[in-house]
Amino acid sequence: MQPAISVLGMGRMGSALAHALLKAGHPTTVWNRTPAKAAPLAAAGAEVAASVRNAVAASDIVIVNVSDYQATQSLLRDPDVTGTLKGKLIIELTSGTPDGAREVQAWAGRHGIRYLDGAILATPDFIGTEAGTLLISGPAAAFEESRAVLGALAGNVQHIGADPGLANALDSAVLALMWGALFGALQSIAVCRAEAIDLETLGKQWSATAPVIDGLVADLIKRSAAGRYAADDKTLSSVSPHYGAFHHLVELMAARGIDRTITDGYEAIFRRAIDAGHLHDDFASLSLFMGRP
Amino acid sequence: MQPAISVLGMGRMGSALAHALLKAGHPTTVWNRTPAKAAPLAAAGAEVAASVRNAVAASDIVIVNVSDYQATQSLLRDPDVTGTLKGKLIIELTSGTPDGAREVQAWAGRHGIRYLDGAILATPDFIGTEAGTLLISGPAAAFEESRAVLGALAGNVQHIGADPGLANALDSAVLALMWGALFGALQSIAVCRAEAIDLETLGKQWSATAPVIDGLVADLIKRSAAGRYAADDKTLSSVSPHYGAFHHLVELMAARGIDRTITDGYEAIFRRAIDAGHLHDDFASLSLFMGRP
Repeated sequence: MQPAISVLGMGRMGSALAHALLKAGHPTTVWNRTPAKAAPLAAAGAEVAASVRNAVAASDIVIVNVSDYQATQSLLRDPDVTGTLKGKLIIELTSGTPDGAREVQAWAGRHGIRYLDGAILATPDFIGTEAGTLLISGPAAAFEESRAVLGALAGNVQHIGADPGLANALDSAVLALMWGALFGALQSIAVCRAEAIDLETLGKQWSATAPVIDGLVADLIKRSAAGRYAADDKTLSSVSPHYGAFHHLVELMAARGIDRTITDGYEAIFRRAIDAGHLHDDFASLSLFMGRP
Repeated sequence: MQPAISVLGMGRMGSALAHALLKAGHPTTVWNRTPAKAAPLAAAGAEVAASVRNAVAASDIVIVNVSDYQATQSLLRDPDVTGTLKGKLIIELTSGTPDGAREVQAWAGRHGIRYLDGAILATPDFIGTEAGTLLISGPAAAFEESRAVLGALAGNVQHIGADPGLANALDSAVLALMWGALFGALQSIAVCRAEAIDLETLGKQWSATAPVIDGLVADLIKRSAAGRYAADDKTLSSVSPHYGAFHHLVELMAARGIDRTITDGYEAIFRRAIDAGHLHDDFASLSLFMGRP
């Protein structure tokens, strides 16, 4: 028999989590502030708890997926709920900051409640599939104990470390990569529109170029990890040609009235690195200039 | 017998171009402002011209790869050189802006000189290989005529259109995508360093996530091409969850003193789209807000 699990929060993501648990055979109790949202789960075989206290009383593992950490805290800090949670394991999958996770963990520790914090790198459609990724941080023992449960939620489950903030931190780091690519694409689309280049042509070019760009990013991370900032015979491109070509883009954007708030950010980082003498170093040397200016 | 080609400019890229032409059997004449840089080409079988005029006199096709369009113009506007070029074909592969290319073409047209403008999407190491991409714009007839020559330089040669500015425009558009990804990676590296996450962990996560991000970019371009901005059942993520998660990143960066000039740019675009009522539309709706604010 699979262990019983309670899930707090029946938004799109929370519902997907509960469905995946039911599918994996876990007796599942759900709770939502507006009970109507829990109805499809009841139909799928979940118990719908009338209160948070009843929900957390029903299982030794409580998964939380609400709007933010404040919402989590306001649910759990009810003294009745806190008391009921004693000795149980909270798996907080609400998205938030590393410090947010650390705060909840500190509170949980003071009340004898065990705590794991996770970040879901997937849209609800991918929950319960091989393509979903779940990053988990917190005590290794609690992770090992709940590994099977977590495996029902995502094909790729990774324990990032004991510090409960790490899952959210890595989540934000990966999202920074994603927004970089997406906002870069928005600029690219704007350039094509201004210059009457068919977006299908851009799409084709993207298919051809994406693997090259992925390789450049991998190389950038690798060099930054190793601190290899000087240009060497493996350097694909030093700061200088990047900066030269970058100015062609800026000139084009200026001429066509395309928003340059993002490229102003690139410019500031380029300038700091060049002013510090890195013009002929590898592009990775820019990673030294991302701190407070 | 392959047609004779002259190449002006023997920087790293110009030298790679000349080597590839020699390898493909073209009688090749080269010129460089400082002749010493042409010596390895002479050793490989190229003629080294003593002047620009002599170089352009030697072939009917003249490839130019110098530092910028101003350098191109100062070389070609010498009346002796201009006269010698009459009826010949210039293939300008110097990197620059669309308007820069249009200017050179207008000048060429006034002097009875044929003109193609190209952009090289490759580092010198990839010239003459299947992995190199060469974007060409200008008259289709001139492109067809020089297709075999261009094919010696890169495996993937594409004619983008008759407007000579289009190759540089698409080049800048693709580079915007590249810098988006690279500066996103710099932010990601900064987050990991601030939170003591091993960059090898980030590298592994990047390998797992890159295909997903590539798909999101492809979807963004496709939706923008079709004008499908409203969220629908294929929407992976609307503006609202993006914006929520984005604030976790900003909060983390603020707490750790990571530079936010780039994310301020994201914020401005998010805000414009949300203020215009797109909070629950597809992320692609942001592409409507890249113009002058």
